Amino acid sequence: MTDTAPLHETLQFTADGLIPAIAQQFDTGEVLMMAWMNKDSLAETLATGRVCYWSRSRRAFWRKGDTSSHIQTLVELRYDCDADTILVLVDQNGAACHEGSRSCFTRKLDTDGRLSRAETAYPTNIGTNAQL
Amino acid sequence: MTDTAPLHETLQFTADGLIPAIAQQFDTGEVLMMAWMNKDSLAETLATGRVCYWSRSRRAFWRKGDTSSHIQTLVELRYDCDADTILVLVDQNGAACHEGSRSCFTRKLDTDGRLSRAETAYPTNIGTNAQL
Repeated sequence: MTDTAPLHETLQFTADGLIPAIAQQFDTGEVLMMAWMNKDSLAETLATGRVCYWSRSRRAFWRKGDTSSHIQTLVELRYDCDADTILVLVDQNGAACHEGSRSCFTRKLDTDGRLSRAETAYPTNIGTNAQL
Repeated sequence: MTDTAPLHETLQFTADGLIPAIAQQFDTGEVLMMAWMNKDSLAETLATGRVCYWSRSRRAFWRKGDTSSHIQTLVELRYDCDADTILVLVDQNGAACHEGSRSCFTRKLDTDGRLSRAETAYPTNIGTNAQL
């Protein structure tokens, strides 16, 4: 890895050519969703400033918001020490989740391992920065 | 999915029996790392209140902090709308990253697709809540 190596020489993609991408709202800190990118959707994201994932089920670009208008504007792209996970700081328009919630992580696992389907507010003070 | 189904009947594990787990500091909102869990490490996490991943390379439990003392205390376990990703709200003792950084996501991808190895501060106001 050099200081300015092209991304495709450094980031670690899976055997399927994918890398997980975590989307986080840049100012409030809410983790909105996790999806996958490939080299092309990552390049598209960088070129357009609008986040584009790779849909594993459709095997096609998934330009977030194309049908919902809930686009994600790229603020910053970070990657981890193993170069095998991306953290995308975004400005999310509306809901990230297809169920209409701001974040996809609306469900809790209780410590006894039981699931709760009830939507619960994002915990503690995360997500409240914008109002401070 | 019922309101209180056992987790192993509802969460979606990969063919290898894994599920991605994003660790986020519960109060500041910093995304610390992404790793994998299997059913046993998830059960261990829930039972002990201390986060335990599954090491794919070692094929063994990875009790975060066993060698470094940088343990992650479980605060809340959330999962997403597809039930195929976990968000672990934790209280991180010390550094999450083996390189000594609080978060593993210390590197930036510039918009021209070039990588920067320089450590950069966690962006915007995320991670500053604790001082507010």
